[in-house]
Amino acid sequence: MGEKILIIGGVAAGPKAACRVKRLMPDALVTIIDIDSLISYGGCGIPYYVSGDVSDEKELRSTSFHAVRDEAFFNDAKGVSMLTRTRALAINRQAKTVQVENLDTGEKQDLPYDKLVLATGSSPNRLRIPGADLQGVYVVNDMHRAMAIKNDLAHGKVDKAVVIGGGAIGIEMAEALADLWDIETTVLEYMDQLLPRIVDPPFAAMLEKHLQDNSVNVYTGESATAIEADDTGRVCRVVTPQRTIETNLVIMSVGVRPRGDLAQEAGLLVSPHGSIVVNSRMQTSDPDIYAAGDCTETVNLISGAKNHTPMGSLANRQGRIVADNIAGIPSRFDGWVGSFIMKAFECCIAGTGMSLTAARADDFDAEVAITAQSDRAHFFPTQAVIMLQMVFDKTSRRVLGFQGFGPMNDSILARINAAAALIAKGATIDDFSNLEMAYAPPFSTALDALNATANVADNLAAGRLRTISIEDYLAWMKASPASRPDWVTLDIRHPKEAAEFVNVFSEDLWKAIPYVEIRARYSELPDDKTLVIICDAGTRSSEVQIFLDSVGRTNNLVLGGGFNAIRRIGPDWWPS
Amino acid sequence: MGEKILIIGGVAAGPKAACRVKRLMPDALVTIIDIDSLISYGGCGIPYYVSGDVSDEKELRSTSFHAVRDEAFFNDAKGVSMLTRTRALAINRQAKTVQVENLDTGEKQDLPYDKLVLATGSSPNRLRIPGADLQGVYVVNDMHRAMAIKNDLAHGKVDKAVVIGGGAIGIEMAEALADLWDIETTVLEYMDQLLPRIVDPPFAAMLEKHLQDNSVNVYTGESATAIEADDTGRVCRVVTPQRTIETNLVIMSVGVRPRGDLAQEAGLLVSPHGSIVVNSRMQTSDPDIYAAGDCTETVNLISGAKNHTPMGSLANRQGRIVADNIAGIPSRFDGWVGSFIMKAFECCIAGTGMSLTAARADDFDAEVAITAQSDRAHFFPTQAVIMLQMVFDKTSRRVLGFQGFGPMNDSILARINAAAALIAKGATIDDFSNLEMAYAPPFSTALDALNATANVADNLAAGRLRTISIEDYLAWMKASPASRPDWVTLDIRHPKEAAEFVNVFSEDLWKAIPYVEIRARYSELPDDKTLVIICDAGTRSSEVQIFLDSVGRTNNLVLGGGFNAIRRIGPDWWPS
Repeated sequence: MGEKILIIGGVAAGPKAACRVKRLMPDALVTIIDIDSLISYGGCGIPYYVSGDVSDEKELRSTSFHAVRDEAFFNDAKGVSMLTRTRALAINRQAKTVQVENLDTGEKQDLPYDKLVLATGSSPNRLRIPGADLQGVYVVNDMHRAMAIKNDLAHGKVDKAVVIGGGAIGIEMAEALADLWDIETTVLEYMDQLLPRIVDPPFAAMLEKHLQDNSVNVYTGESATAIEADDTGRVCRVVTPQRTIETNLVIMSVGVRPRGDLAQEAGLLVSPHGSIVVNSRMQTSDPDIYAAGDCTETVNLISGAKNHTPMGSLANRQGRIVADNIAGIPSRFDGWVGSFIMKAFECCIAGTGMSLTAARADDFDAEVAITAQSDRAHFFPTQAVIMLQMVFDKTSRRVLGFQGFGPMNDSILARINAAAALIAKGATIDDFSNLEMAYAPPFSTALDALNATANVADNLAAGRLRTISIEDYLAWMKASPASRPDWVTLDIRHPKEAAEFVNVFSEDLWKAIPYVEIRARYSELPDDKTLVIICDAGTRSSEVQIFLDSVGRTNNLVLGGGFNAIRRIGPDWWPS
Repeated sequence: MGEKILIIGGVAAGPKAACRVKRLMPDALVTIIDIDSLISYGGCGIPYYVSGDVSDEKELRSTSFHAVRDEAFFNDAKGVSMLTRTRALAINRQAKTVQVENLDTGEKQDLPYDKLVLATGSSPNRLRIPGADLQGVYVVNDMHRAMAIKNDLAHGKVDKAVVIGGGAIGIEMAEALADLWDIETTVLEYMDQLLPRIVDPPFAAMLEKHLQDNSVNVYTGESATAIEADDTGRVCRVVTPQRTIETNLVIMSVGVRPRGDLAQEAGLLVSPHGSIVVNSRMQTSDPDIYAAGDCTETVNLISGAKNHTPMGSLANRQGRIVADNIAGIPSRFDGWVGSFIMKAFECCIAGTGMSLTAARADDFDAEVAITAQSDRAHFFPTQAVIMLQMVFDKTSRRVLGFQGFGPMNDSILARINAAAALIAKGATIDDFSNLEMAYAPPFSTALDALNATANVADNLAAGRLRTISIEDYLAWMKASPASRPDWVTLDIRHPKEAAEFVNVFSEDLWKAIPYVEIRARYSELPDDKTLVIICDAGTRSSEVQIFLDSVGRTNNLVLGGGFNAIRRIGPDWWPS
């Protein structure tokens, strides 16, 4: 008679642990219980189901060979018992049983275990504002809600939508609504940027512009204070301090919290935020009880802090590690760096490690190198410019994070994954400079965009490059000339490109001398002003800075990312 | 008066070192000499110029902002003197001068240096066979030859071509000729696979089939023994021991050798293969002379051996390191792992680190995990299957290499770059299992294909999975039933998929029981035969192996990569 392995939770970590345990210990009696009738679905696919890219919800619950992962599949193919519509009521650690209730019959029973796995996941937050429970207001955390939303859409109930929350899921949902269903969609984010804490302001601004270019209204720094209903009781508007937005659908995507209640009631160690505390083997404070996925907190490999990180990718890795340890294979989850990637219409935004904001909040001596580089050989027909940013510690030269924004293909993924690998290994700027990215003209450049970004960071860290941030530059330009009469932009692009800007801003603020003529013409530059040197990407500007320094004109700064950055951010007062 | 920095070689490493030196030491007098009139071109772009993807050769010599990198550009924009059509005759290390000759005027002079950089590159090999120098026989190593080839094409001189050499450049040239110019093209490779030593036989076989599917003839294990001319003296056929091939163009792409002569004549340390010996600062045996790029040999980070690695990506990194050291910034090139990537029509093939063949030749206890995985969520519309392979050392669990084959986008790049980063850091299978690849359905799967490949390697290394190689399986099937009457294939795919194979091979050799029915029907299997379990990818087969083992039927092996691998290799006797 095999060991009894009981698993609470039938999505991601739970099924992963169950199937791996069964493979490692074929004699084990493995049972999964889940409160829902639909289990083992790809939750991250919900926006693509809502949009219609995925036509049938069953596809989100299928294997790659098109078998639906239902109770029969787990039983027949995996040898795992799956009890759905079954709620875990309490863990009895002395008796090693879990009391469960069948939600259809009301019948209760005690299920015995030798090892117990908690994969209880997370619950979506709901704002405590009037109307948060109205008909037509949804959180997006399970298949039933996804199906209800799609049903509303398919029945023509929706022509305007408001998404509360500018995180990844909110933005993916906004795209689904606006792009495929042609719904007038508004995103509200109470922080002052999209993807707060995940990416830094310039990258959030590029994303925001791209959403706006695709007819999504975005209001940051703006909270929903009330949701109101029409006569039928269905949602009809969202109120903020700034405006009232008509709508017939509200998606509330304002984060999740770990489901640690069951663990806490059983006396297991739970963090102040409600996450189940585990060691590197994903073992709780009771050695016979493991936990994995959204209900746990694990170590950030960069800061060393423990955090709740609700991500499907981590849940799957942790589920496997739980199974290994149950089967006696010593296996550890050492921590996470926080890789993420997201499609937004025709663009891709991604990051790994810490943002500059997060790194500085954590007392790193953090600085940032931002570049605009070709994703592949500039002469290859499909070439595009991608924006990359490295966050690094100036003292230790350790790389803390990496962000990317580019077209909707895998070019950003190719840099983010490599960065994640190095950051997890505690790599320095030099490791990034010399990382041997694969090169052929259809895929990359001889010195890859990632390497080039590291080289800019190297120059910054060594004090060989002085930059001005995009935020500071835009703030100055917006306020000019009154607030900063002592600054002038030096535009070193082709005179044809610069002419329009000289016109708009005047020669006092905007001086145009092409890159190749600087060595001959630098004496034309005012010597009583700080020059902000600007080109397309920042590369030529860096060279010009070095030259100007060498002739004693040291009062200059480079705008990293150059026009490529500003064009993607697109301030409305900027010449088009 | 600044230091005199003299650089021999005006492509890749040379210009990189020159421009970086000038940025670090603005007072330095930096001079590049090059034997050619065309300099600082992207040599790896030549196939795309020949194909017509790149219309003008100037594009290969331009910056990303469309400035042509000619003598004037280096002088005006970079502050670097560029002497073209200038040959270096001899280095006088005592006097610290280089004697040079102007190829147009015949004038000779001695150029003084404080620091000298050798970036002399490599020379293309030419087979020593009759006719190797005929008109219409080209090596591909500089812009003049590239322009001559394109001229032949544009003037309609070519309707058939033979490429001698099945390495990356040969295959890229074959595609350029066949795809864009519709020329009947044949590739000859004297080793028994394409990309020998770079990728392993199954990946070479997938590439070979894809070339053949695109009307390129490929003959491996076949050498050109003579090249013959027509009455006009132009090439008209290539002779091999097996056949005579009519042609009016021959591309000879049979490797390169380092140009170390000048260094050797100056008494610098040069390897037996002719590479200039450098330390990790890219310094030769004379501390005032540096070398970088194709003319050097550097350390393989996996094997520790020193090798000549002629790659533009390494040359650029090394050029930067030379400049740093000249400027007093301690900077090291620790070594390389050998990342490569290549487009072939609608496919991409790539690798990093060592192949299984190379690793075994180097006495590693090497084994291989091959998988067929979705590049992105299987429910996402653009999903495709990619083939990945991990080479690892069974004893140390260190990952030695990684290969990929997939569609022509950046999905393979995204895995190879991450693998290169980890391999360079001496990572183990476990590091790959837990690497936090960025996840969202449009880009990847919750457990990325790279992670999944590592998990297969983990099971193999731990003895929890027993596989048969694709080569062994195909050899057996081709010879069956006579040679191996004691083996039988167990096809666990859907009965509709299996039916055709049961028909062709008979029930004796091909037993079909679907995956979900194995637990109920395993007693139908013959117990006196070795079962080769086969599914689409190998994943389900692994589960079936575990189950069969658990019921005592341990005489079974899994075919890693499954039908996805075999279909891409496409043996001609295989049911279509």
